[in-house]
Amino acid sequence: MKHFLSLKDYEKSELLEMLSLAHIVKSDLKSGKATTALAGKSLAMIFEKSSTRTRVSFEIGAAQLGMRPIFLSSRDIQLGRGEPMKDTARVISRMADMVMIRTFAHSRLEEFAAYSSAPVINGLSDDFHPAQLMADYMTMQELGYDDRAVVAWVGDGNNVANSWLMLASKMGFELRIATPEGYEIAPKWVELAKGFAQKSGAKLYFYRDPIDAVKGAGVVATDVWTSMGQEAENEKRIKDFAGFGVNSELLSFADSKAIALHCLPAHRGEEITDEVFEANADSIFLEAENRLHAQKGVMLWLERHNRS
Amino acid sequence: MKHFLSLKDYEKSELLEMLSLAHIVKSDLKSGKATTALAGKSLAMIFEKSSTRTRVSFEIGAAQLGMRPIFLSSRDIQLGRGEPMKDTARVISRMADMVMIRTFAHSRLEEFAAYSSAPVINGLSDDFHPAQLMADYMTMQELGYDDRAVVAWVGDGNNVANSWLMLASKMGFELRIATPEGYEIAPKWVELAKGFAQKSGAKLYFYRDPIDAVKGAGVVATDVWTSMGQEAENEKRIKDFAGFGVNSELLSFADSKAIALHCLPAHRGEEITDEVFEANADSIFLEAENRLHAQKGVMLWLERHNRS
Amino acid sequence: MKHFLSLKDYEKSELLEMLSLAHIVKSDLKSGKATTALAGKSLAMIFEKSSTRTRVSFEIGAAQLGMRPIFLSSRDIQLGRGEPMKDTARVISRMADMVMIRTFAHSRLEEFAAYSSAPVINGLSDDFHPAQLMADYMTMQELGYDDRAVVAWVGDGNNVANSWLMLASKMGFELRIATPEGYEIAPKWVELAKGFAQKSGAKLYFYRDPIDAVKGAGVVATDVWTSMGQEAENEKRIKDFAGFGVNSELLSFADSKAIALHCLPAHRGEEITDEVFEANADSIFLEAENRLHAQKGVMLWLERHNRS
Repeated sequence: MKHFLSLKDYEKSELLEMLSLAHIVKSDLKSGKATTALAGKSLAMIFEKSSTRTRVSFEIGAAQLGMRPIFLSSRDIQLGRGEPMKDTARVISRMADMVMIRTFAHSRLEEFAAYSSAPVINGLSDDFHPAQLMADYMTMQELGYDDRAVVAWVGDGNNVANSWLMLASKMGFELRIATPEGYEIAPKWVELAKGFAQKSGAKLYFYRDPIDAVKGAGVVATDVWTSMGQEAENEKRIKDFAGFGVNSELLSFADSKAIALHCLPAHRGEEITDEVFEANADSIFLEAENRLHAQKGVMLWLERHNRS
Repeated sequence: MKHFLSLKDYEKSELLEMLSLAHIVKSDLKSGKATTALAGKSLAMIFEKSSTRTRVSFEIGAAQLGMRPIFLSSRDIQLGRGEPMKDTARVISRMADMVMIRTFAHSRLEEFAAYSSAPVINGLSDDFHPAQLMADYMTMQELGYDDRAVVAWVGDGNNVANSWLMLASKMGFELRIATPEGYEIAPKWVELAKGFAQKSGAKLYFYRDPIDAVKGAGVVATDVWTSMGQEAENEKRIKDFAGFGVNSELLSFADSKAIALHCLPAHRGEEITDEVFEANADSIFLEAENRLHAQKGVMLWLERHNRS
Repeated sequence: MKHFLSLKDYEKSELLEMLSLAHIVKSDLKSGKATTALAGKSLAMIFEKSSTRTRVSFEIGAAQLGMRPIFLSSRDIQLGRGEPMKDTARVISRMADMVMIRTFAHSRLEEFAAYSSAPVINGLSDDFHPAQLMADYMTMQELGYDDRAVVAWVGDGNNVANSWLMLASKMGFELRIATPEGYEIAPKWVELAKGFAQKSGAKLYFYRDPIDAVKGAGVVATDVWTSMGQEAENEKRIKDFAGFGVNSELLSFADSKAIALHCLPAHRGEEITDEVFEANADSIFLEAENRLHAQKGVMLWLERHNRS
């Protein structure tokens, strides 16, 4: 059974197949052509954290493929009352044809997948956010960036940063990561990515100074400093991330045509200024919209490769 | 882009077109004929307050038109965590084909609409409840009332009362409003309605005594005294609204065939007696059912006028 | 109007018709054949308690029949703000084509049904859980058990036990119930079942010692000791139910091929050991999956018999 838990589990060619499906269904949708390859199937969506983009994009995307999406908040199901993941997995996967999960520990996803008779998709875990990165790469493709792109990540070494690292090291582009002290990407992911990079030719750089990362970059990506569940650390984080906000001055070091990406929600005045955000609204909201299309590509790919 | 935020934004002829579509789809539904004019489209429904009728009627109505409705409670999306309305609007409207919002300040709706690339429907704001009033007018039409009708509103000068004022002043019927001191309709809405009335010929009267409003009226409408969010004022309101309950004695002043309307939920013994409520259950629950049909008319109209 | 509130309200022949429909739609689903007998209809699902299996099985099952399922948590609708059941019933049943309710007092279901113009299905009440028992009997049928089966219930005399009593007394198989002192099935249900048993030939036995119940049984069923809403009694219940856990030693008294059933969620180490649970995972998760199919049988049956 093929699942979609992290980009690290896939070959570049497989990721490109998914993206290729994504571009096709996007183009079909824009021209009013329905794709109902998954008609009559159902997608169970389990959310242990709140969500806008993941929720709406998976729910509308599944429906556009002819599927029946079911939104399950942990408030509403027994998972929230302590049912073991492996029991919930065995029940839900005998009824639903595909399962998307937004959860905390990545190991919860892996446990669900181990007991699931249906493919499982990561809708955000503490370690990875691969669905987001598929949309980011799709956006890069549409805006003319390819594997010669130079991407800078400025901010927290969080799940989105981890997934950027996996994406770059699989695809082979240059990624420059600038994080404050104490917020670096975990060494195990760096080591893993370096291994992938040997095959793909990716260049991976790690900096303390955002200017070093951004110099000449074509894409500058960031994310909130305080993710869901870290609210108690907010004050400390704002202090620790001083100087890591993406503003016009920092962007002046990037390529003159550089675009900013942000996976949203944005906290203006913290990780990005209102000026930079609104100047890059086209790329940022294209990136958001591409969640819809990229995930449809992933679902179609999973269905094809698990069909047997 | 045409939205549906308030009746004040529409011509009488446009409102009648929407109602005409509503009558057609109602009749089609009753005869088992499916209307799938919006097949494959999606409706995002954002609720910042709880709801029964709006929720069920929009969700079933959209599905009956072939749409995929998505229920988004502010608990479940980032709006509840402080994402600016304009960002949520730009994300959701790039994925969904239509958006319904139940919110607090009417300005939140207007801000969403300003940034939305999809039509926005008001599912209740602090100022207006136009979807309810479309159902009310549809019910009046079905029960034989037309623009010569005399309607009395007895109770709070709230969002439903404001929308009655817009409806009457656009359609041209006689509306008599009785509110307790301190609960009058805001002067700006009265002024606006008087302007519309000059064109439509509507007669608008404002009373302190419910008997003055009800005398000879064909329709007597009311609503709860304490709306959602006003629970802390409940005791004071019950005192202030003394004498404004719709009971048999008050109705004895109305036309002998007069009907009562209530947009529900009802608090028996407060704004309406159990006796009057149950005696008028036919019109009251027809009014509730017509939410389904009237809103389908609105959605079909919006799709037609935004298609181009 | 036919509803589905309790097995006690049905003849054996009617229950067998529902199960027969369930087997057909299960087989159709497995062979990729769509059943869209209820296409275009809607199912309102009202949950006053949380749920995994009931939620997912009704929502996916309805969608597989072509229906539009709508999940209404009492948090999200006015029922939670005190709207009388009879008003909610009249509103929702004028819009939805079928209604499923999970609630507390069984009388709430009966009140809803009395005012509903659409068929109502019990998704769990304090007294009964008939949808679960339809799945249990379907599982028994698939695993080769018939009306000569001997079934033991070990544990709480709760809603699931009540429904086992109704099932056995209607179908005519042997049911042996072992409950601790103070947790017996209410005498009124025992009397009612004894009446049904006279017609069906069912044998009903009530024990204090689990070994007496299990001796030679082909099916051993149990459920959690502390149901939703009883959390405050948890410690006392664990003490009171000592000796009522289903473990290998107890099962050694059953038929050598006996299977265990559990309606889930399971509390390993309390009412069932991990060893017994995992050894019987095939029958337990088949039982869970059959919720999906059995309920589709019920919905199809209700539609046929209310069509007129």
